[in-house]
Amino acid sequence: MGPHPAVAAIRLAVRRALHDILNDHQASGPTSHERPPSPLVLVACSGGADSMALASALAFEAPKLGIRAGGVTVDHGLQDGSDLRADEVVLRLRELGLDPAESVAVTVGREGGPEAAARDARYAALDACAARHGATAVLLGHTRDDQAETVLLGLARGSGTRSLSGMAAVSGADGRYRRPFLQLDRQTARKACMVQSLPVWDDPHNADPAYTRSRLRHEGLPALEKALGKGVVEALARTAQLSRDDADALDAWASQAENVVRDATGLLECAKLYALPPAVRRRILRRAAIEAGAPAGSLFARHIEELDRLITGWRGQGAINLPGKVVAQRQGGRLVIRQG
Amino acid sequence: MGPHPAVAAIRLAVRRALHDILNDHQASGPTSHERPPSPLVLVACSGGADSMALASALAFEAPKLGIRAGGVTVDHGLQDGSDLRADEVVLRLRELGLDPAESVAVTVGREGGPEAAARDARYAALDACAARHGATAVLLGHTRDDQAETVLLGLARGSGTRSLSGMAAVSGADGRYRRPFLQLDRQTARKACMVQSLPVWDDPHNADPAYTRSRLRHEGLPALEKALGKGVVEALARTAQLSRDDADALDAWASQAENVVRDATGLLECAKLYALPPAVRRRILRRAAIEAGAPAGSLFARHIEELDRLITGWRGQGAINLPGKVVAQRQGGRLVIRQG
Repeated sequence: MGPHPAVAAIRLAVRRALHDILNDHQASGPTSHERPPSPLVLVACSGGADSMALASALAFEAPKLGIRAGGVTVDHGLQDGSDLRADEVVLRLRELGLDPAESVAVTVGREGGPEAAARDARYAALDACAARHGATAVLLGHTRDDQAETVLLGLARGSGTRSLSGMAAVSGADGRYRRPFLQLDRQTARKACMVQSLPVWDDPHNADPAYTRSRLRHEGLPALEKALGKGVVEALARTAQLSRDDADALDAWASQAENVVRDATGLLECAKLYALPPAVRRRILRRAAIEAGAPAGSLFARHIEELDRLITGWRGQGAINLPGKVVAQRQGGRLVIRQG
Repeated sequence: MGPHPAVAAIRLAVRRALHDILNDHQASGPTSHERPPSPLVLVACSGGADSMALASALAFEAPKLGIRAGGVTVDHGLQDGSDLRADEVVLRLRELGLDPAESVAVTVGREGGPEAAARDARYAALDACAARHGATAVLLGHTRDDQAETVLLGLARGSGTRSLSGMAAVSGADGRYRRPFLQLDRQTARKACMVQSLPVWDDPHNADPAYTRSRLRHEGLPALEKALGKGVVEALARTAQLSRDDADALDAWASQAENVVRDATGLLECAKLYALPPAVRRRILRRAAIEAGAPAGSLFARHIEELDRLITGWRGQGAINLPGKVVAQRQGGRLVIRQG
């Protein structure tokens, strides 16, 4: 008798990710005749159902592929007793056979709000941990439900296709971070823990209505499903993939076009910009503003629109002020964008 | 003292649309020396707040620009007494000074569900009415809130950037349909009717939970706003515009690339397709399937993905069956897509 379908599903997802990691590892590895050391793959584990399921599947699949499997849990220090919780998670990772298994304590700042600050601290710790152990990859437990939530959060920003593209299956320096469960629903991960008798921990933050993502999970998405039907989560996850591909293609086009629309001195020529499709032109304008020193996070659609009117609605308007003290103006058919 | 801000807002929106219509009309008009007849612009009016506000603004602005203003209401025959309702709307349009003002009765079929069938019948009637009167344009009362709902409906399909692009400000044959209120919120239209003492009719369909759009309006969107904040409607409307521009640019790229990837006999060359970005390649594959006879509405993302694997994951797989009895296979490095 084979494993429970939920366990089979999480293992299959991890097996595929490990095959990809091995392929990438061999492709990028040294071409010497020495046998390369067996690669190490870490799982980032909060102790919640998603990442515990991921840890269990990694522990099961890695040895069969000659991969060493380890685990790390990050103690954000945001709740009383979080250090004890982290120790407990490490114990569970060890029981699964993961080695190394360790906890890393971080100090969460305030920049960008509580969720962004915790995320920044967490990834910095995971980066450091991966480097310290020479890990080839770090697996993250984000599920299709997390992806759907991320797409809706991007939608709320209203800043276009890139912001709808959610989380990538492969991201970070050298494709270090992998998300094997991005096409798997949360329910399957939870079920897999249950049938494997893995104790899981429900982070109270996940149910705290002070957090946008939590409100979305417990109120926004269910209401949307009620209105639009059960397929919403899947549709949102598919939107992420399609949007990512579209945004990549348009970024590539903008990169290429940028070389053509600059004159010999490097200034953007308005007539050539005018001839481009708006989607490409606005990407070039955005990049130019960022290059001149405007912080990407403060540059909104309305800034780019105003910039674009120097090209498409030229009636002799004056200089435009952009975030980061960047000033843009049209001079002799050229766009001059400089930090003032 | 000027008009109430809500009335000023609806008039400004209509004035801008009329200027655009005049510009387009003059650009496309005959170059004879005879003075062209003054153009006719119709408003499509259900008697609801949005389109009554639109009718009132059209009646106010059109004469100042030498434009004749008329109105039409469509009687869908779906409720008892709908013909009397339609007569009442015509009366109100006449009172506003619109001429012609008429009602058109349609028979709503069943194809595509009740909402799609009603929409198809409505646009067919509006097309015929515009042709009969020689109207230059037909104004539609869709607001920013309608746009937000349309984006969410597209999101639920999960079919990518084009489906997120909502309604266009200008659409139909020769850009006949115009939506002046696409950046205006529903509340402003309602307020403008109130302060002008215009009686409005609330279509019971708009509150009927049997309709997806109605559930979205009364439950889905409010829940989303509660989770994500008040700017959601605006963000969704902005997403529509950005998505439309992105989809247009990528469609243009695909059109251009299609010529390059076909061999002398017109077949798609797999090696050349492989070199394209996935977003462009999949658009070419989709167009090729439709050209071969697959109905666009039945062609889902999973079909295109399967087709794409003939290019990116070739391992000698057999022919693929697509909707509309279209069969696709790879032969000698070419893609053969034909109705079987």
